Amino acid sequence: MDNSRLILLRDLMKERGIDVYIVPTSDFHTSEYVGDYFKERQFLTGFTGSAGTAVVTADKAGLWADGRYYIQAEAQIEGSGFMLYKMGMDGVPDVEDFVKDELPEGGVIGFDGRVVNAAQAEKLEKIAADKEGSLYVTEDLIDFLWEDRPAMACSTLWILTDEYSGETAVSKMDRIREKMKEERAGVHVVASLYDIAWILNLRGNDIENVPVFMSFLKIDMEGAALYIQPAAMTEDIREYLEGCGVRAADYDDIYKDMEELPAGTKLMIDKQIVNYRMVAALDEGVEIIDRADPSELMKAIKNDTELKNTRIAHLRDGVAMTKFMYWLKNTVGRKELDEYTIGLKADELRRQQEHFLDLSFGNISAYGPNAAMMHYSASKENSAKVLPEGMLLLDSGGHYLEGTTDITRTFILGPITDQMKLHFTTVARCNLALANLKFLHGCSGISLDLACREPLWEMGIDYRCGTGHGVGHILNVHEGPNGFRYKIVPERRDSAPLEAGMITTDEPGVYIEGEYGIRTENELICVEDEKNEYGQFLRFENITYCPIDLDGIDASLLTEKEKSQLNNYHAMVREKLSPYLTEDERNWLEKYTREI
Amino acid sequence: MDNSRLILLRDLMKERGIDVYIVPTSDFHTSEYVGDYFKERQFLTGFTGSAGTAVVTADKAGLWADGRYYIQAEAQIEGSGFMLYKMGMDGVPDVEDFVKDELPEGGVIGFDGRVVNAAQAEKLEKIAADKEGSLYVTEDLIDFLWEDRPAMACSTLWILTDEYSGETAVSKMDRIREKMKEERAGVHVVASLYDIAWILNLRGNDIENVPVFMSFLKIDMEGAALYIQPAAMTEDIREYLEGCGVRAADYDDIYKDMEELPAGTKLMIDKQIVNYRMVAALDEGVEIIDRADPSELMKAIKNDTELKNTRIAHLRDGVAMTKFMYWLKNTVGRKELDEYTIGLKADELRRQQEHFLDLSFGNISAYGPNAAMMHYSASKENSAKVLPEGMLLLDSGGHYLEGTTDITRTFILGPITDQMKLHFTTVARCNLALANLKFLHGCSGISLDLACREPLWEMGIDYRCGTGHGVGHILNVHEGPNGFRYKIVPERRDSAPLEAGMITTDEPGVYIEGEYGIRTENELICVEDEKNEYGQFLRFENITYCPIDLDGIDASLLTEKEKSQLNNYHAMVREKLSPYLTEDERNWLEKYTREI
Repeated sequence: MDNSRLILLRDLMKERGIDVYIVPTSDFHTSEYVGDYFKERQFLTGFTGSAGTAVVTADKAGLWADGRYYIQAEAQIEGSGFMLYKMGMDGVPDVEDFVKDELPEGGVIGFDGRVVNAAQAEKLEKIAADKEGSLYVTEDLIDFLWEDRPAMACSTLWILTDEYSGETAVSKMDRIREKMKEERAGVHVVASLYDIAWILNLRGNDIENVPVFMSFLKIDMEGAALYIQPAAMTEDIREYLEGCGVRAADYDDIYKDMEELPAGTKLMIDKQIVNYRMVAALDEGVEIIDRADPSELMKAIKNDTELKNTRIAHLRDGVAMTKFMYWLKNTVGRKELDEYTIGLKADELRRQQEHFLDLSFGNISAYGPNAAMMHYSASKENSAKVLPEGMLLLDSGGHYLEGTTDITRTFILGPITDQMKLHFTTVARCNLALANLKFLHGCSGISLDLACREPLWEMGIDYRCGTGHGVGHILNVHEGPNGFRYKIVPERRDSAPLEAGMITTDEPGVYIEGEYGIRTENELICVEDEKNEYGQFLRFENITYCPIDLDGIDASLLTEKEKSQLNNYHAMVREKLSPYLTEDERNWLEKYTREI
Repeated sequence: MDNSRLILLRDLMKERGIDVYIVPTSDFHTSEYVGDYFKERQFLTGFTGSAGTAVVTADKAGLWADGRYYIQAEAQIEGSGFMLYKMGMDGVPDVEDFVKDELPEGGVIGFDGRVVNAAQAEKLEKIAADKEGSLYVTEDLIDFLWEDRPAMACSTLWILTDEYSGETAVSKMDRIREKMKEERAGVHVVASLYDIAWILNLRGNDIENVPVFMSFLKIDMEGAALYIQPAAMTEDIREYLEGCGVRAADYDDIYKDMEELPAGTKLMIDKQIVNYRMVAALDEGVEIIDRADPSELMKAIKNDTELKNTRIAHLRDGVAMTKFMYWLKNTVGRKELDEYTIGLKADELRRQQEHFLDLSFGNISAYGPNAAMMHYSASKENSAKVLPEGMLLLDSGGHYLEGTTDITRTFILGPITDQMKLHFTTVARCNLALANLKFLHGCSGISLDLACREPLWEMGIDYRCGTGHGVGHILNVHEGPNGFRYKIVPERRDSAPLEAGMITTDEPGVYIEGEYGIRTENELICVEDEKNEYGQFLRFENITYCPIDLDGIDASLLTEKEKSQLNNYHAMVREKLSPYLTEDERNWLEKYTREI
């Protein structure tokens, strides 16, 4: 890539008097993954990673990327005029510090006000104010350069009927209005695509593997308005929305309507999600109640229908995964295999399941040392051969009409070292220890994480990432506010107290750079246990049904308690899956779920 | 007690136009325990408990007390005109809600602005403002009623020499000034008596069992001023202070000096500790930097001298406790014993130790069902007979020139039930599990608490309090910002990440109402373990040397790992203590620290 885009951007900045221009990786909704329309940072720098920020001044151009992307980014930005800033490395300034340093007195910071959330933008606003400077946020400069820019995604919507959602949109909005009353809010604007899809029981396909649709939702005491691209609407959907008391408005009209909210309005929004241009449009007399959208917690606590269905989705997914495991263990060494085709096989088996909708994310199929890279992705062109030795890690999942899954298994393909076996066994111990906890209501994932990490910490090993994340219901496979990690990371917003009905993954691992990676991931529903004078006890129901490869387990490393945890898990897996397997598969499963 | 004090208070309120008057339990420094001079709430209501708040209106008078005091408070306020509000009971308003409800439009809330911290007072200010009302905080109305009020304590100060403190006051103040520079603060006022004593390496005796002295400390870039009662000063101390660059000022002058801080001053204070009158005195142009005093964290991270000495203090304390245990186990059933005299015996053995200064708190000596009350206190008049059956719980500690101790042991005095043995053994398992953790830097007590609680939670039991607290060094036996609990309680301020050098107690328990109580408490120093590519690992050093009564341990309930944890602990106890015991005691100790 050459630096022509950078040169053109600098011309536009100069014309407008912008000293520092920022191009983050985001859409107008602070989504985790973004559609092609929003890949401006990639367009500008050439770097294709899923996260990163570009910052341009008259004489500097930086790309900030994190550890998983150092090598890739360095190669991809070659010639673009951008220099790599390795996030997290000692001595490397972060974006904010860089902006602070580079901004001259009275200078102007520019960015598209729609792709930076209000909380983030207010920090930049402060940096500008400290230098008597200002923001320029009303134009998307990259749009002027990007001639063959893809159109914004605009898929057709479909209704997740009550049978599958378990609660009508009307009921959900009524519950939200109750929260608005508690906060004395008159208007509530939701910008999270996940929350809008959940509230309205609608799904789309505007982000790869995330069945949401570009929209904003404004709720007041009388009704609601859905701001959506006109082409996404059908007559059926319009009728459905009307039936729910929701009128349709044009996607872009949200800014005008924010502007027109009268002074005195008490507006409930989440500034960490709502974009800056929306907030900047508000009359000064509007009182902002800045808090997490009530729907964030509501959608995380799955209702009985969602839970019942999720178990069905996991059963289908477990059948696919177990068939895959059977195939893999019986094929490796007999046929030429590579990571990419193995990943395709898993996808194919999932697609064969009833009510399959989509993959919930692009699979990670990683062999040998590749599995030590937590976010490795094999491609058709670049995929390691898989041999009958060592281990293969497969992290994958699907959306079904009944729910969403996310599972990781590491498979033993042939001889492994004692150290691999020790690490594989320890990861299983970690996974099972967390899954078998009983704890008091009030605990967050912060207070439970230790159960999963302790066996590894005892050996001086850590997995340098969270232990688990909430799982959306036919939404983003990652969702808050629940999660497991050992210290609070404020911007993650995943340390809320665990409530019955929440679903969280349990995915410890060992990653030895240049050698191998092991991860075992199950999903856990938080359920009620006994209630007594000490309070409400909770525990977990394991809903991932697939063997943990016994070829990697050294039983002598397990306590009696751990053995029975593993045996109980395998007995459940066998019982759940057997009816859906062929005789050969069933016999094989007997062996791979045997008591140890 | 009659209601004459209440009637007089109402007269004073009426004269001043005060609608709601609040009398909390505090001194001018937000201290946990207060001197007799400050027991205004007790004077007004008759209730002698260590915590509680009185609120008076023209027609209502309420005393707020927590669960441990319901029965005592009800009895003591009889006739005083006060009604008991049981804090924490369903449907009982808290003080703030009560004030909110009772305050008329345009009404006046009154309290002595020196006994309410600024953060708390600002909440009351907001309640008043919402009703277009105001605060009246410049008088201590109780002082007008209290004719035989004790004088404010004013003990002589003594210097903790460098040999014992490990760091000079000058060095400590320099470190604090570094923090002030980081925050761009020009002036820092410290109101915490613990922090002032720590910073200046001075101790006093103004609060029972807490060797501090009434004072404020003002630090700026050039020097410092200690506001102190003139009678507390000697020539030696004045000279010492001058040598440290600290001038002495009159205790009461702090308010005038706050008033005189010029506009534009950047003042660093902790509003949760500094009293309201100090903040109310400030010029509007003073910019407040409200954060925890830097000394809070500094004093919690003990230096090498403090750590070395603390181990010596614990050795002395362990000798006293082990001699006590020997005496108790060999005396019960042979002599008449009661809780109170047993407590005196433990105090006496402690006093016999070299460099003993004071008890670090009044001991809890509790037999049988009394031990189920976590804050039980036996008195000479009211003390249960102790028989050769069941269990006795003793929670006690001392201040030595080398440091402060806090230890709880539960002793088996004769036959106990299987359930008692199960619970005793489980409490030991909990205690040892926490003490033997290895964990990554970054963990707070929130992330580690599970290790201690899980064995009990698994049985559906909880101990309804924190697992442990930081321990001051010849200061308050309770200090932050470290602690162990499973969810953050913001006002406790005890969930900071653990740092090497912090000392925290480890005190799980089982409390069966009406039957018995078990607690085993050790103190743990956080120390560094290996540092590798995953980060700095930490672990604990156990510094409490006293057997855990093996008569209560059912070895069949322990895993091999737990057995070796207990055996290792006992081997260390035996090795540390044996040289300081008589032959009889030593032989006995052999048995009570035997391998199981």
